Amino acid sequence: MLEELKKRVLKENLELVKNGLVVLTWGNVSGIDREKNLVVIKPSGVSYDDMKAEDMVVVDLDGNVVEGKYKPSSDTPTHIYLYKQFKDIGGVVHTHSTNAVAFAQAGRDIVAYGTTHADNFYGDVPCSRQLLKEEIENGYELNTGKVIAETFVGKDHNAIPAVIVKNHGPFSWGKSPEDAVHNAIVLEEVAKMALKTELLNKKVKRIDKYLLDKHYNRKHGKNAYYGQNK
Amino acid sequence: MLEELKKRVLKENLELVKNGLVVLTWGNVSGIDREKNLVVIKPSGVSYDDMKAEDMVVVDLDGNVVEGKYKPSSDTPTHIYLYKQFKDIGGVVHTHSTNAVAFAQAGRDIVAYGTTHADNFYGDVPCSRQLLKEEIENGYELNTGKVIAETFVGKDHNAIPAVIVKNHGPFSWGKSPEDAVHNAIVLEEVAKMALKTELLNKKVKRIDKYLLDKHYNRKHGKNAYYGQNK
Amino acid sequence: MLEELKKRVLKENLELVKNGLVVLTWGNVSGIDREKNLVVIKPSGVSYDDMKAEDMVVVDLDGNVVEGKYKPSSDTPTHIYLYKQFKDIGGVVHTHSTNAVAFAQAGRDIVAYGTTHADNFYGDVPCSRQLLKEEIENGYELNTGKVIAETFVGKDHNAIPAVIVKNHGPFSWGKSPEDAVHNAIVLEEVAKMALKTELLNKKVKRIDKYLLDKHYNRKHGKNAYYGQNK
Amino acid sequence: MLEELKKRVLKENLELVKNGLVVLTWGNVSGIDREKNLVVIKPSGVSYDDMKAEDMVVVDLDGNVVEGKYKPSSDTPTHIYLYKQFKDIGGVVHTHSTNAVAFAQAGRDIVAYGTTHADNFYGDVPCSRQLLKEEIENGYELNTGKVIAETFVGKDHNAIPAVIVKNHGPFSWGKSPEDAVHNAIVLEEVAKMALKTELLNKKVKRIDKYLLDKHYNRKHGKNAYYGQNK
Repeated sequence: MLEELKKRVLKENLELVKNGLVVLTWGNVSGIDREKNLVVIKPSGVSYDDMKAEDMVVVDLDGNVVEGKYKPSSDTPTHIYLYKQFKDIGGVVHTHSTNAVAFAQAGRDIVAYGTTHADNFYGDVPCSRQLLKEEIENGYELNTGKVIAETFVGKDHNAIPAVIVKNHGPFSWGKSPEDAVHNAIVLEEVAKMALKTELLNKKVKRIDKYLLDKHYNRKHGKNAYYGQNK
Repeated sequence: MLEELKKRVLKENLELVKNGLVVLTWGNVSGIDREKNLVVIKPSGVSYDDMKAEDMVVVDLDGNVVEGKYKPSSDTPTHIYLYKQFKDIGGVVHTHSTNAVAFAQAGRDIVAYGTTHADNFYGDVPCSRQLLKEEIENGYELNTGKVIAETFVGKDHNAIPAVIVKNHGPFSWGKSPEDAVHNAIVLEEVAKMALKTELLNKKVKRIDKYLLDKHYNRKHGKNAYYGQNK
Repeated sequence: MLEELKKRVLKENLELVKNGLVVLTWGNVSGIDREKNLVVIKPSGVSYDDMKAEDMVVVDLDGNVVEGKYKPSSDTPTHIYLYKQFKDIGGVVHTHSTNAVAFAQAGRDIVAYGTTHADNFYGDVPCSRQLLKEEIENGYELNTGKVIAETFVGKDHNAIPAVIVKNHGPFSWGKSPEDAVHNAIVLEEVAKMALKTELLNKKVKRIDKYLLDKHYNRKHGKNAYYGQNK
Repeated sequence: MLEELKKRVLKENLELVKNGLVVLTWGNVSGIDREKNLVVIKPSGVSYDDMKAEDMVVVDLDGNVVEGKYKPSSDTPTHIYLYKQFKDIGGVVHTHSTNAVAFAQAGRDIVAYGTTHADNFYGDVPCSRQLLKEEIENGYELNTGKVIAETFVGKDHNAIPAVIVKNHGPFSWGKSPEDAVHNAIVLEEVAKMALKTELLNKKVKRIDKYLLDKHYNRKHGKNAYYGQNK
């Protein structure tokens, strides 16, 4: 079942490797079929080298495995929670990409310092609060999803389609698995740029609101004029 | 039309990828035919993987598409303005290469700290002033070109064939698309070196004028003796 | 003899290269046959390019060469000492990977700043004390092993399967050569992340104990639920 | 003539590219035939992509081109001076490798912080004094050689086979072109490690003399025991 989506989810998992976002078996991509309410996700701890589309695991929104010979990613409850909360997204990505993790470990938002950031994220990419002891000990992966949702209360998750989970690392999402991976790639790059920017100027300030608006809106929204008409 | 120039512009766009200067579809190269006053430029937001010479877009100096099935790069007005102001250049490049962008976000010139810089740029590569709110909201890409030209008032754009646009990133140019890409590669490398230099020595000073002169002139100008006679 | 183990040890030595952990001929991997008490190790100073399984050297636990046309790695006495002290390990790795060496040169533990670290190492990766003059001048490689063992007095070498030898670099181990190389890869990555983390936040603190517990235990121990059942 | 040496010099020039030490056409390797007193060197400013052994240029110790259709590297007078001063060396290399150049621009020696350094360089790699105005304006490349030789007065150029020329970059040498390239590779790596080490520990000190002795001597000199007997 969902053979087409499995192929896409596999391909996007391999894109993470190709773009240097994962080491060993770290990182996972999922995609959802919104009509069937089924999620296709990478199996847990399996090497990318031999992974096939048929190895992808199908789970329902209660986390039950519907199809697949492997256990799904241990982060599956986080993915599912995000699909439930952000009802318009179609893909979720989690990586341990180096620079985004450095921000997570430093407990800091990735500040919007330039147009590279503004082209993709309409404002700082927030760092979540730390999970409490009891949130970690019981239902950790589910609570990770809840803390991400909490971080976006009052924020537009489509305008800033990524988060840094404190002490852990980045999650991103998008209207499709492809889009979510795109956002993971940009996130790592803007994290790398932001670190270098701060090394060059300790008093650097966030980009002005009107430049943020300009770049975000020329790529997104109804008056976008970047890219080709679709 | 301009099939030869399209091939060269395509090739140079791919050189950006090969040299690690672009992520995803970021970055663009153009070339001009000075006899016909036509510019060949990369289409906007198209993946590098499948790009063909015939996908390059031909525009006139008023920005009208003369040939091509795609929309041209959204930065086309900047390229065109530079061709109009710098009448002896033949190619323009824009990238979001990591270290040059870090300088843009830090709002700092790339200081000439050594001979690698001096071999290519006759002095610091300047960071432009920030665009004003009204310059951003109306005619942003055109105004980006104007601010670049303003930055070079009293400077020789051939001796320093690149600029850092504040909060945005680098633009470079040259007598041909190949030359402009060459300058983009050197720019990213000297930006990387300059950042590391400052980490090693907080009080580092600019290269002496006579060493700058020596290195620049052994590669450029009528007494150049680097490279082969042409 | 031990042809199968030689193939595995060769493969893991090449994995070091593939994962960017070695320059030139630096680094070495060994594996032990616990029934025969024989160690298979990379030859000293031989290029990775032409290395064959039959070039691996077999030594006994007194350091005598039992088979092989080459001299074994000069670090062989360190490997042997570790096999004798840590009786449950099956593989040992030594590299000069860039970021782990930077910690060794700085004389600092790699602090557990996040879950990437906690997934693999149950606490900070310790930096050993400096070897004394007399320990260096006589039996240096053996004494390196002894200082590593000393560093782990009161620590669980299986829970933290790596060490930073002061002014030198990292050693890691595991239940097999494959596992030891895995740990070397993770070590370099968490060292890189830790350095960047400190650049982003000078006052950053170690991960909380309960998050360390959670991540370590979801991958290790009897209640582990990461990866596939074996 | 010297066809064998030309092949080796070409191969080592390509090794620079393979090891990530050069950008564009930067960098050059030469080798000397001590019986004929002829030097084989890379041509100036020619692309590495199409370079052939027959493109290498043969010059005598007065700098006259003896064979070759191209002009030799503009750094040829530096190479020749080094061959004349350091009479036992067989190869010279110059690169603009990123981290070594950062030290050159910072005007700093590369301090021996660890055994990676000590394995190859018996002490800090010195940064030369700055060339004077008149040394730059007349006979610049020759004077670069002279300043390198001056830097090594009282030092053993075989024990520390590399230098950082202030504001410029690294030169290395060795008993052969292969050995000189080896030293250039190690130099860049220890420069990278040294920078990171200082970021991790602002008060870091040089390696102890007896550890420096141990590592240098286990690889070099009559009691060396690293590598295979030759």
